[in-house]
Amino acid sequence: MNVFIVGVGLIGGSFAKDIKRLRPECKIYGIDTNVSHLREALDLGIIDVESSYDDLGVADMVIVSIPVDVMVTELPKILDAVNDDCVVFDGGSTKSLICKTLDSHPKRRNYLAAHPIAGTEHSGPSAAIENLYVGKTNIICEIEKTAFKLQEKALELFQQIGMRIRYMNPDAHDKHIAYVSHLSHISSFMLGKTVIDKEKNERDIFDMAGSGFESTVRLAKSSPAMWTPIFKQNKDNVVETLTEYIQNLQEFKQLLEKGDYTGIFNEMNDTNKIKEILNGIPLNKK
Amino acid sequence: MNVFIVGVGLIGGSFAKDIKRLRPECKIYGIDTNVSHLREALDLGIIDVESSYDDLGVADMVIVSIPVDVMVTELPKILDAVNDDCVVFDGGSTKSLICKTLDSHPKRRNYLAAHPIAGTEHSGPSAAIENLYVGKTNIICEIEKTAFKLQEKALELFQQIGMRIRYMNPDAHDKHIAYVSHLSHISSFMLGKTVIDKEKNERDIFDMAGSGFESTVRLAKSSPAMWTPIFKQNKDNVVETLTEYIQNLQEFKQLLEKGDYTGIFNEMNDTNKIKEILNGIPLNKK
Repeated sequence: MNVFIVGVGLIGGSFAKDIKRLRPECKIYGIDTNVSHLREALDLGIIDVESSYDDLGVADMVIVSIPVDVMVTELPKILDAVNDDCVVFDGGSTKSLICKTLDSHPKRRNYLAAHPIAGTEHSGPSAAIENLYVGKTNIICEIEKTAFKLQEKALELFQQIGMRIRYMNPDAHDKHIAYVSHLSHISSFMLGKTVIDKEKNERDIFDMAGSGFESTVRLAKSSPAMWTPIFKQNKDNVVETLTEYIQNLQEFKQLLEKGDYTGIFNEMNDTNKIKEILNGIPLNKK
Repeated sequence: MNVFIVGVGLIGGSFAKDIKRLRPECKIYGIDTNVSHLREALDLGIIDVESSYDDLGVADMVIVSIPVDVMVTELPKILDAVNDDCVVFDGGSTKSLICKTLDSHPKRRNYLAAHPIAGTEHSGPSAAIENLYVGKTNIICEIEKTAFKLQEKALELFQQIGMRIRYMNPDAHDKHIAYVSHLSHISSFMLGKTVIDKEKNERDIFDMAGSGFESTVRLAKSSPAMWTPIFKQNKDNVVETLTEYIQNLQEFKQLLEKGDYTGIFNEMNDTNKIKEILNGIPLNKK
């Protein structure tokens, strides 16, 4: 089987590593506009050969993991170039605009809209890791628009690499993911900014930072090139989550200013139930 | 050596575990108003014997790890009860009020004000773990007010369990810790609240949550009984950090509303330097 990875970074590269291990007969073709990333992916053995859209005609499967703004311009071209038995799926963190863009594409049946909820704060081919997807959720949108045999081809891979599948419509995906992913990133970036601004002349203050600060600010290491287009495409939902988050912070601040410590205790106590909720996330059961 | 642990939870219990391992000749006495915690600490082998303030006269070292509001009322009583060669140190997350309260205590020289920057989001004796303190920073305030021999006694222990020592005055401690610890907790609690409020009727939405959400919201599992008095004692500094954090979030939201994506990219890009800063935190070098 010929598998093409378009965008050989953390997400695409991790798919490639699992496929190479689980299906050694597969040949992995890499495509990337970043020439040094492509070379690095080859040197690391993540891909077998550097390739281009000209070769897409021989593809059995194409995995597209590029920033979501580029996704919108590139997925139509990729679909144009593949054969009828090829399945193309993406790993974009937004789904509405991508699905809308491809809705009337003549090869819409070759496309499967996916969002594997997995990753780290690192990026590039060197960030790719084996078993990244074990136990993680893969959200699939508009499954009914993908040809049945091509659904099967993609789902077999997802199952083999250990993912759980959830089906959702693109608008619901974008709305909910704004809360459980996009907002976390902004809260973390702005926490990092607040502390850096305050402590810029006192770097040794970070000696005081413990693992609590570290985990809360971890996502502030994420790639701006990847996240800017995500926030752009999901602007309305993200603005809504930010409005609610800021409102909650202001209320907490007012409780503190008023000296309402019973109120502060209750706010935290009510939120403690996140423990049980997080225990329900399968990735935490490992 | 007779070591007393007042408050046999995560912090006190973890000290006890390391002391038992490294200094098997020590006898560990436990004191706690929570009778079931005290029994649990005994059953888990964290302490050797249940005790009370009546026994404090035989103590060589007292480690006080209780909520910071109780610290203010209990530390004077503990100092009253110990002998002249006993060192008493605490693990409170605030230092100003505690130091001020003890400033004129006749046994001030027996007290060492400490804040070991270590912990997890869990609490109680069962949360105590060995080697919690390896490579972590211990902030010590007003070292000059502790008797020299008693400084030595405490510092020997900190060194033996692998801590790095930093000296700071209590007001500076409380100001900076508001940024690198207290604010992280509030941002995490309010993130948890925002998402729970929105998704309360759709629990399966948390299936969509990945490790990014999990790490950002981890601190929202923390104990409200411990954190409410911390925020109360450090109110002014915490209100200041919250004001700046909310301001940064509002500015980010405005950039998004205006569609200034270059501005959004730059905000994130500038904050990416948190990578290098965090790499400077020794606990990450493990």
